Amino acid sequence: MEPENETKAEQTQEQEQVVNPWEVSAKGKIDYDKLIDKFGCQRLDQFFVDRVFRLTGRTPHIFLRRNVFFAHRDFNEILDAYERGEKFYLYTGRGPSSEALHLGHLVPFMFTKYLQEAFKVPLVIQLTDDEKCMWKNLTVEESKRLARENAKDIIACGFDISRTFIFSDFDYVGGAFYENMVKVAKCVTYNKVVGIFGFTGEDHIGKISFPPVQAVPSFPSSFPHLFPGQDKLRCLIPCAIDQDPYFRMTRDVAPRLGYNKPALIESLFFPALQGETGKMSASDANSAIYVTDSKNEIKNKVNRYAFSGGQDSIEKHRQLGANLEVDIPFKYLSFFLEDDDELEHIRKEYGSGRMLTGEIKKRLIDVLTDIVEKHREARANVTDEMVDAFMAVRPLPNMFN
Amino acid sequence: MEPENETKAEQTQEQEQVVNPWEVSAKGKIDYDKLIDKFGCQRLDQFFVDRVFRLTGRTPHIFLRRNVFFAHRDFNEILDAYERGEKFYLYTGRGPSSEALHLGHLVPFMFTKYLQEAFKVPLVIQLTDDEKCMWKNLTVEESKRLARENAKDIIACGFDISRTFIFSDFDYVGGAFYENMVKVAKCVTYNKVVGIFGFTGEDHIGKISFPPVQAVPSFPSSFPHLFPGQDKLRCLIPCAIDQDPYFRMTRDVAPRLGYNKPALIESLFFPALQGETGKMSASDANSAIYVTDSKNEIKNKVNRYAFSGGQDSIEKHRQLGANLEVDIPFKYLSFFLEDDDELEHIRKEYGSGRMLTGEIKKRLIDVLTDIVEKHREARANVTDEMVDAFMAVRPLPNMFN
Repeated sequence: MEPENETKAEQTQEQEQVVNPWEVSAKGKIDYDKLIDKFGCQRLDQFFVDRVFRLTGRTPHIFLRRNVFFAHRDFNEILDAYERGEKFYLYTGRGPSSEALHLGHLVPFMFTKYLQEAFKVPLVIQLTDDEKCMWKNLTVEESKRLARENAKDIIACGFDISRTFIFSDFDYVGGAFYENMVKVAKCVTYNKVVGIFGFTGEDHIGKISFPPVQAVPSFPSSFPHLFPGQDKLRCLIPCAIDQDPYFRMTRDVAPRLGYNKPALIESLFFPALQGETGKMSASDANSAIYVTDSKNEIKNKVNRYAFSGGQDSIEKHRQLGANLEVDIPFKYLSFFLEDDDELEHIRKEYGSGRMLTGEIKKRLIDVLTDIVEKHREARANVTDEMVDAFMAVRPLPNMFN
Repeated sequence: MEPENETKAEQTQEQEQVVNPWEVSAKGKIDYDKLIDKFGCQRLDQFFVDRVFRLTGRTPHIFLRRNVFFAHRDFNEILDAYERGEKFYLYTGRGPSSEALHLGHLVPFMFTKYLQEAFKVPLVIQLTDDEKCMWKNLTVEESKRLARENAKDIIACGFDISRTFIFSDFDYVGGAFYENMVKVAKCVTYNKVVGIFGFTGEDHIGKISFPPVQAVPSFPSSFPHLFPGQDKLRCLIPCAIDQDPYFRMTRDVAPRLGYNKPALIESLFFPALQGETGKMSASDANSAIYVTDSKNEIKNKVNRYAFSGGQDSIEKHRQLGANLEVDIPFKYLSFFLEDDDELEHIRKEYGSGRMLTGEIKKRLIDVLTDIVEKHREARANVTDEMVDAFMAVRPLPNMFN
């Protein structure tokens, strides 16, 4: 049923578009249709948006309406099960490699918070401090510190503590979780992970050991304090599409271990200010808006770095209009401007040249400043005690209510 | 300092002698001198036996006097440190792949018990139930059950509960132990483990992930409940020489992580009844004496299967004497007959033909029956509560007294 369309690293490089959990790059724009074909997932079309609306009685999230979450695996089966009155749980995560998050990092968390509220389901959030220790060559201590710092930003997104368990791998690997890691590892050959992830013989064995760590939160038995005796509980994973290789592997082994395949709902990458050729880069502070940026920094970054689809001269712009396909202010607004009517208005006005680049940038600065200031306020209220509470290994007795 | 003499699987196979943690075989007898050269460890000579006697004031253990433990790495440094009044700890282990142990399995534990008593040092014993789950294709549950059963046999060897911590990987992997696993994994490439262990691309990644699990009990920080703040504590590992590849890898990475290299004291393989071409095989019940064998079973196995170096006819035997080099009853007595004078007497009498095969076999049956019956009695007294007590994660406040 599921095509074995694995990303051979070599192949992908030849094709000018590299998308794996550690690298996203393309010579031009990312071709998401090609990615869907290569990975073997499905496009998330209007049918799903309407169905989610019908099932939850809420306006679908902006990221769903605007097709930011654009691909899926078995999301229909999750919705079928939900309609029958069956439960599921959400799983998402983050590799804590930097102190401050940028807006792209918030995308899956904002969306996951919406799913949690709309479907009233429990959520596990994995902080892969072990992964970042190995890939970014951080010390164990620094990785663990970053995991806790990032947990504060995640909590600031507004998750419901009665339905949310956040864990770091360095804290939580062991017991039932480790048993599942071993079970998964037994089912996956070295050649297989080379095919999926493009490892080479000179890669350290920590990298080869890691995929089962990210795989097993997909299985409810990895959380005996949350889901005892509920081995058939379904899992839905909201994530950016670069994480798909992990879960292709996971879906491949799940039936052999007697578990359901996890379902996925997958997002586009949030583009860099400089243009849509990949994800934002943590190493170039001017490529992204950080949740720690001041109002002035946001203003300067947008005005100086946000790639514009507007024309060179006002005359030409009035005549031809902006190229919305490459315009970053318009892209960013389509992620974050809640008002559908206003976005449509901007599309027409800016696209036809009646609105100028300076005007749309000004609107974007307002929208981003609002999001960032709200986030900063929420984060300032997150105490160490709250982090401990979210990360405590505990049952969640009301997680489905 | 340490030669990089790694066992390439291909090389070894060409050389008709395969020794790695999962396979021990040779066309003729194992050539232990060759093994020492290949692995790059040192021969343990009379100097060490005398030095241990001087330092501990006890008769060196039969396995030391008889050169059953015949090779080492840095054992001299452990003794130097001990002489200066510094402490160390012991680490040994077992892969729990079978219900009942045979005498070969007991060899490292008998010797480790002696070391613990003679040097008054703490001991950690790793039960690699995760390894056996992966290599023997046992279920997690069955591996864990076997680990507990084997723990009873190990406890029956007489370890001091105030100095001994037994743990199973499925129970104990996590926390500081997992942090060390990740640190080790970061230092070892795939090509390196292929060189050391002979893995292929069709091996599952569980195998590739496992070496750090066996490596990290060599580092005191893997046991924060035992050795807090004692990261420089030295570790001595008594084991059969087939485990050397794991610790060659461990010694290679230890300095990069700021730890001492573990020292090793390594034994010969306990030969099969059928002759000295490898270790005893768990899959052929007639190749070994099990600790569950009855007096009659021992008698029958020795009389029927123990390979004899005696001559075909009594006349020829009286004339030529037994070939002690290949005689299994004599080998077994050299492992287990405590009385050095009696062994020397048998060597002369049997080697010259004055003693017959039936006589030496009869003596061996007595010796083995005595060991097995004592073990069975001790094991019958090991309760589940004792297993829990040995496996409890707890400090050992008097472990050096």
